[in-house]
Amino acid sequence: MIDTPSLVDQYCHGVLRTELGLGTFEAQLARTEGPPAPGTTLFDTQTGFAVRRWCPPLLGLEPHCPPARYLARRRELGVLESGRRLLRGSGITTYLVDTGVPGDLTGPAELASAGDAEAHEIVRLEQLAEQVADTSGTVESFLANLAESVHGAAATAVAFTSVAGLRHGLALAPEPPGPGEVRGAAGRWLAGRRAGGALTDAVLLRHLLWIAVASGLPLQLHTGLGEPGARVDRTDPVLLTDFVRATAGLGTDLILLHGYPYHRHAAHLAAVFPHVYADSGAALVRTGARAAAVLAEILELAPFGKILFSTGAQGLPELHVVGARLFREALGRVLGAWVAEGAWSLADAQRVARLIAADNARRVYGLG
Amino acid sequence: MIDTPSLVDQYCHGVLRTELGLGTFEAQLARTEGPPAPGTTLFDTQTGFAVRRWCPPLLGLEPHCPPARYLARRRELGVLESGRRLLRGSGITTYLVDTGVPGDLTGPAELASAGDAEAHEIVRLEQLAEQVADTSGTVESFLANLAESVHGAAATAVAFTSVAGLRHGLALAPEPPGPGEVRGAAGRWLAGRRAGGALTDAVLLRHLLWIAVASGLPLQLHTGLGEPGARVDRTDPVLLTDFVRATAGLGTDLILLHGYPYHRHAAHLAAVFPHVYADSGAALVRTGARAAAVLAEILELAPFGKILFSTGAQGLPELHVVGARLFREALGRVLGAWVAEGAWSLADAQRVARLIAADNARRVYGLG
Amino acid sequence: MIDTPSLVDQYCHGVLRTELGLGTFEAQLARTEGPPAPGTTLFDTQTGFAVRRWCPPLLGLEPHCPPARYLARRRELGVLESGRRLLRGSGITTYLVDTGVPGDLTGPAELASAGDAEAHEIVRLEQLAEQVADTSGTVESFLANLAESVHGAAATAVAFTSVAGLRHGLALAPEPPGPGEVRGAAGRWLAGRRAGGALTDAVLLRHLLWIAVASGLPLQLHTGLGEPGARVDRTDPVLLTDFVRATAGLGTDLILLHGYPYHRHAAHLAAVFPHVYADSGAALVRTGARAAAVLAEILELAPFGKILFSTGAQGLPELHVVGARLFREALGRVLGAWVAEGAWSLADAQRVARLIAADNARRVYGLG
Repeated sequence: MIDTPSLVDQYCHGVLRTELGLGTFEAQLARTEGPPAPGTTLFDTQTGFAVRRWCPPLLGLEPHCPPARYLARRRELGVLESGRRLLRGSGITTYLVDTGVPGDLTGPAELASAGDAEAHEIVRLEQLAEQVADTSGTVESFLANLAESVHGAAATAVAFTSVAGLRHGLALAPEPPGPGEVRGAAGRWLAGRRAGGALTDAVLLRHLLWIAVASGLPLQLHTGLGEPGARVDRTDPVLLTDFVRATAGLGTDLILLHGYPYHRHAAHLAAVFPHVYADSGAALVRTGARAAAVLAEILELAPFGKILFSTGAQGLPELHVVGARLFREALGRVLGAWVAEGAWSLADAQRVARLIAADNARRVYGLG
Repeated sequence: MIDTPSLVDQYCHGVLRTELGLGTFEAQLARTEGPPAPGTTLFDTQTGFAVRRWCPPLLGLEPHCPPARYLARRRELGVLESGRRLLRGSGITTYLVDTGVPGDLTGPAELASAGDAEAHEIVRLEQLAEQVADTSGTVESFLANLAESVHGAAATAVAFTSVAGLRHGLALAPEPPGPGEVRGAAGRWLAGRRAGGALTDAVLLRHLLWIAVASGLPLQLHTGLGEPGARVDRTDPVLLTDFVRATAGLGTDLILLHGYPYHRHAAHLAAVFPHVYADSGAALVRTGARAAAVLAEILELAPFGKILFSTGAQGLPELHVVGARLFREALGRVLGAWVAEGAWSLADAQRVARLIAADNARRVYGLG
Repeated sequence: MIDTPSLVDQYCHGVLRTELGLGTFEAQLARTEGPPAPGTTLFDTQTGFAVRRWCPPLLGLEPHCPPARYLARRRELGVLESGRRLLRGSGITTYLVDTGVPGDLTGPAELASAGDAEAHEIVRLEQLAEQVADTSGTVESFLANLAESVHGAAATAVAFTSVAGLRHGLALAPEPPGPGEVRGAAGRWLAGRRAGGALTDAVLLRHLLWIAVASGLPLQLHTGLGEPGARVDRTDPVLLTDFVRATAGLGTDLILLHGYPYHRHAAHLAAVFPHVYADSGAALVRTGARAAAVLAEILELAPFGKILFSTGAQGLPELHVVGARLFREALGRVLGAWVAEGAWSLADAQRVARLIAADNARRVYGLG
């Protein structure tokens, strides 16, 4: 009844190129501090159950088959072929791919090819800055190269993404740091840094946000669940309120990724500020059978033209599948129930479903 | 099955007297920072969809008809007649009206007449203080006139309301400010103020709360969603805990308005403190098709004798309709499901429905 | 369909030995600051309604009968016989009993005998410290006796429990206090203390936590709802994040009791840290007809091997009944719906139900 013929996954990563055993596959199902507790397994999670529900049939097995059987079949087909079958079974027609995470992951072109889909790049600001730092000799050249790199990336990427919240927390001073402050912070960071060292300095994180805002490209901000061992309230999107207000009217859209367990706060900001959008996808992969309930909470305050779908998937094509299928089913169930109750008309529900699944993302990111 | 024959709307405002076009009508549907984003409309929100569901039939149209058609019919009937039809179709029999917001809105008597209902006035403390400041020459006369005005208002109003949370945040020192502190704050405020200037000083906001508490009239406190651009966590009702404890046993009831997205916190305070009540209404207008889910969350901790209905409607009689209809349907659905499951008896559910819809408010506000 | 043949109540207290009148019974239904508001009763709460649903049939009355009738029947049977019937009707086969609350409550052996079940003791750290303080003359003897007492208790108890969150809030420095700091705090506390005086000093509360961690026995931490008049956000389990990280890998499990209204945060910590577990029970007693909804929120992030059942019951055997019945029904409904939707297999659902109801607790507490 509620149809979403195509899905634009507005935030994901590539998939691993290596064959995986049971243990290495399991480790990709969740982000944790340490291995599963004795007597437990990460397959016994909403994500694990969702993978076992949706993926085996795409590889010719019955749903909910045991993990070992699924992994055996996956290895039998090989990582390439199983990846192709999974991605093509996801229903995703466009991938926006954050290429800034470590690991041997497929890039946008490879993902597009495997999934018979389009793909575009999202540039991660902190990784860009770290790469520039690796090749810049002085503070002056670092800052000049950084500005140039962001400018250059803006010409080819569809969006920037920032993990400032995961690196430092979102309680950042809302205004752009002054030039002297930036030079001082850059000097200290470069002096103390070894090649590859991560950017966590609050002044430089803010500087990055502001040069990204100046580029006009949509800027995705990580909120809610993220760094497993960090205090999750440090990434409550409510902490972004002052930054959001400071960037209003500049012509750059902000997308609040993930949000959960603060997705109602993200939805509130999307309702209040014209340039703010809320992500409805990544949380669903984590909450599995509860996806419809979580999606419905986002749909309380967020205007229907301000919600974007994503999977947030990384490493396993299974996570792209699960993100897409959970979203589709959850959206169909939530909107379908409202139509059945008479709260919404069917035509409105179908229109809103297409907005959230693809059309809002096409408009925000200027896709074809 | 679950019947609510009459509704006491314990917090709302009047309606606009002027004819509205599509754009001016849309602007009343939500409180935002700036116009809708390009390619979006405020009609594509839960509130917009709820208006299109409930209101067209009251004006002789089919539910979910397009906004332009609804607005055309509204203008055809005229603002007065459409207002009468809407308000009389809401099921509200008593309105408690906060008259302290700007704009050309109908007062209690006019609302009562249009809606064929009773109406009583709620006095907004901050507006009262600003009016007194406009006409008082000295700090001494201001403070004396303020005390007298609050005393006078208490004789005719059914409640006071405070927007201290929206003006300053709810993290106010819980105890009453001392006389010297109040005089100093009043002196600074009056000296720097132009006629009509808003009261935002924390000391004076606290002083107002305490002279209101001393009056014995129920005191309504705005919590949760409010000022669109402000940090919503500044109005988390949990911040009121110490003030609530400081006012316990004084004989004055506190009503926590709105609450959402912190409505579980408001319900908790209503459960713990005998003099605290939780509002169950205004959040429903914002969350539309999710009204039953939000109401159910309030019903987790709040004792059933401590929950009050309101619409929080302002400007559009459509919002009174939507607030009342969403509440009635949500209450019937939530309690009806509990009866169907055997969790509640039908008689209990019917009794609780009448408590929340009207009887609790009658008891708290001393209505006939 | 979803069967839980036995329940291990991993956190509860004993029951009162005295006959109760209507008022004294009502006062046990909730923890409040003062008596119910005029015109209201604590029977008109989710807990009150749940008691009236589940308990009358166990005493031979119809569900939902009036409180006065239920209390008359209870007195007719006598406190002992009604307690036996209630506890044996709860479905609980093992009780873990926190013996550290004041009042004339039955101990583990008496509870086991009345309920035809097993029972084991949980030792409350703060009460242990207060008892040691009552009998120690000097700082040195206090600290030595405290270490010895904790060591001794670890030999017989199945767990320690700490109410540091309720006494001081959970925003405690995460690392163990140094020896000099502990001696100083102990000296100040003992000097200013009268016999029976409660331990609220932050340094000593932390010291207790760390000597408990060193014992290797599972450590239960109170989070969420607790002290009725305190700010509930002071017991948000997110505040424990740094303490949790500091205790990782030491071999001691942490159990986050209650959690509500921050149960999603507790579930998140259980998902991230191998040694953290989330309680799924006590919140259900407070939210009654909403138990399935609250349980489902815990099931979003918490791995299924990391969730434990409890009632948190104290004083009334009715609360043990209600905690157990609400949990069983909620679990059956939530998991059953997921099976019906095809999201979970029936075999998985049955396995997870047994984990949460009993097997996880047996593993964590080393029960037979």
